Amino acid sequence: MSNDIEWIKIAFQGERGAYSEAAAVAFFGEEIIPLPCESFDEVFTQVEAGESDYGVVPIENSLAGSIHRNYDLLLRHELFIVGEVNLRVAHHLIALPGVKLEDVRHVYSHPQALAQCERSLAALGDVEKVPTYDTAGSVRMLKDRGIYDGAAIASRRAAEIYGMSILASDFEDNSQNYTRFLVLHPQEVVPQGIAKTSIVFSVENEPGVLFKCLSVFALRDIDLTKIESRPLRGRPWEYFFYLDFAGSMQEERCRNAINHLHEITTFFRNLGSYPKAT
Amino acid sequence: MSNDIEWIKIAFQGERGAYSEAAAVAFFGEEIIPLPCESFDEVFTQVEAGESDYGVVPIENSLAGSIHRNYDLLLRHELFIVGEVNLRVAHHLIALPGVKLEDVRHVYSHPQALAQCERSLAALGDVEKVPTYDTAGSVRMLKDRGIYDGAAIASRRAAEIYGMSILASDFEDNSQNYTRFLVLHPQEVVPQGIAKTSIVFSVENEPGVLFKCLSVFALRDIDLTKIESRPLRGRPWEYFFYLDFAGSMQEERCRNAINHLHEITTFFRNLGSYPKAT
Repeated sequence: MSNDIEWIKIAFQGERGAYSEAAAVAFFGEEIIPLPCESFDEVFTQVEAGESDYGVVPIENSLAGSIHRNYDLLLRHELFIVGEVNLRVAHHLIALPGVKLEDVRHVYSHPQALAQCERSLAALGDVEKVPTYDTAGSVRMLKDRGIYDGAAIASRRAAEIYGMSILASDFEDNSQNYTRFLVLHPQEVVPQGIAKTSIVFSVENEPGVLFKCLSVFALRDIDLTKIESRPLRGRPWEYFFYLDFAGSMQEERCRNAINHLHEITTFFRNLGSYPKAT
Repeated sequence: MSNDIEWIKIAFQGERGAYSEAAAVAFFGEEIIPLPCESFDEVFTQVEAGESDYGVVPIENSLAGSIHRNYDLLLRHELFIVGEVNLRVAHHLIALPGVKLEDVRHVYSHPQALAQCERSLAALGDVEKVPTYDTAGSVRMLKDRGIYDGAAIASRRAAEIYGMSILASDFEDNSQNYTRFLVLHPQEVVPQGIAKTSIVFSVENEPGVLFKCLSVFALRDIDLTKIESRPLRGRPWEYFFYLDFAGSMQEERCRNAINHLHEITTFFRNLGSYPKAT
């Protein structure tokens, strides 16, 4: 046993300063080694290969909806959900130090961030919206290329990391903008306190079968917090169902519900029990 | 009463030759006036404004999943679903007449079409994949710009419309590639034969409430064919639920189920009953 601090490695999609990095810091604290990845696939692969201790990926935004790619990747990889983070997405208009609001002719960001700041951008007058692959990556690009007639929409953290100025804060049109992130790990955890569990299953396509699946929870007063369906590839108009429910696999009534569910499903996987985000 | 043939106007997203145009022809026959639109929003707006008789939009692909934008637009606009079409998506590699397979250095198409032909593209060797906004639009671009070292991935119909050659047919990796399209109209129809109905609703966020909603169908042996959830903007982690069920609002048991559902929901809208696609 040593007192050395072991900084944990966290993989996430995007450049340093991405919202996923802010989610990782919210969950683990500042003592992390960030591992920026090009794609969500790479995040899963890095954690699976042991190159990173944990992965952090967005799963759902309160305005735009689910990030379906990550639902599909949960099934394709053998990782467990060990935590979740709700992050308020606060967009900032960021530029090189010295740039004034009236100098800005082009605004760079991910298409979704541009869309979420539509009214604020319109108020700037005649500026060109330039879609890019990444919010924080746009800030980095302004810096790397020395662009003085442009600004980027990204997190406060991105401005700090790249030593940039914030021209406008809380730049988003709708403040009810939250993203829920999942923390991924090769091993399951036993959650303390209020827990959630995520599962995925498929069923034979017969009348009333989804009702039967939900009944195993309702009959035991277990609250469902999310249902999502994704196509079953190769079987048109059949689906995988992803469910989140309140409770953990440590609780008998949850285990009973899952045993009951097994009687109905043709495929089932436990994606993990984890502490519910506050 | 006259015997003049009145050709109906059909709005769809994309250039002439888009898969949505093929879906429109599959539903209405060749006697249509196609109205290509830049966006899905424009399709809904054109039909609502009476500029087009009907709109045809994709709602679900058997490999990629739901087209969530169109679920959101169904709620934002006051149109009814009056039909559906299941179209097998057969991708073709299309080039200017005279171009040979070995001349092709760049392949242009919508990112989803490029992804669905990944293995076929890899077999071509060293070709660059160029993402574009539209499948049929890529064919048109090859023609307009006289590009002789490139090809596009699009429908057979696109090749015919622009007088281009097909270098390879059935170019997609997975042949179980179907897209379901909806036909939209300002007035409801009374469907003949086997019918489906689409509805959307929201509920108070309380334990077991989705189970209760599904029970109104299960208790009456009404089969659900699809469930989809979308975020309720401004109320994080609450949802609109979109359901498709077998049957029409002309049937008493369906009307009874909907009356029962009204006791549970806080918002409800009937999106229309329509003949089930074959």
